[in-house]
Amino acid sequence: MAWTVEPKHFNRNFELRSRKLAMEEAKGLVKRMLLVKFKDGTPPAQIEEILKNYANLVNLVEPLKSWHMGKNVSIMNLDQGFTHVFELTFESAKRLAEYVDHPVHTEFSNRLRPHLDKVVVITYEPTAFST
Amino acid sequence: MAWTVEPKHFNRNFELRSRKLAMEEAKGLVKRMLLVKFKDGTPPAQIEEILKNYANLVNLVEPLKSWHMGKNVSIMNLDQGFTHVFELTFESAKRLAEYVDHPVHTEFSNRLRPHLDKVVVITYEPTAFST
Repeated sequence: MAWTVEPKHFNRNFELRSRKLAMEEAKGLVKRMLLVKFKDGTPPAQIEEILKNYANLVNLVEPLKSWHMGKNVSIMNLDQGFTHVFELTFESAKRLAEYVDHPVHTEFSNRLRPHLDKVVVITYEPTAFST
Repeated sequence: MAWTVEPKHFNRNFELRSRKLAMEEAKGLVKRMLLVKFKDGTPPAQIEEILKNYANLVNLVEPLKSWHMGKNVSIMNLDQGFTHVFELTFESAKRLAEYVDHPVHTEFSNRLRPHLDKVVVITYEPTAFST
């Protein structure tokens, strides 16, 4: 079935938002999203330390503009066992590359990796439609 | 190996950020993150229409506070084939529930689902450390 575009979906309000979207894109922010499942054998206290050290990278690695974290509370059964989300924001792809190459990031990654059961990493330039 | 906390990781700056974190948490925002891989058989033009209709939910479903989208450009080979990220923000878990139950959301979901090769859905209350 073709997904027909109904008029209500493309009203004037939508056009205004499309212009806003273009403005958002022009900012050129780059985000890195990680979904993580810690190993069952990693004690909760150690996970908390890892999270503190991860959060603290914004103080130690200048190209990292912001860091957000969340624990999964979904009840949809579509989470594939992932327990944590991390959102990292950079001002450009160049700044992301600087972060990746930073020795403090490398040290953190080497400490994090042994505790991961699985991980997904996505990099993207976010577009936005906000109310 | 115990992950020892080094003094540089917990300086006064970090304490200030911890208070900021507490403030962020108090806002009570709830985010829903979706990672999606569209089926190979779904034509790009149809994917674009789906994205437009998804974005337009902020105009049609009042509890949806903001909507961000990004196409994966990661070169890390940890993306498990996911092609798109969607970030949806709500003012509370109650507002998220209202969104989920909204007939326009249900209609959209029913149209989206047949085009998905795979999907991960995570719900979380984001914390923040920003520079």
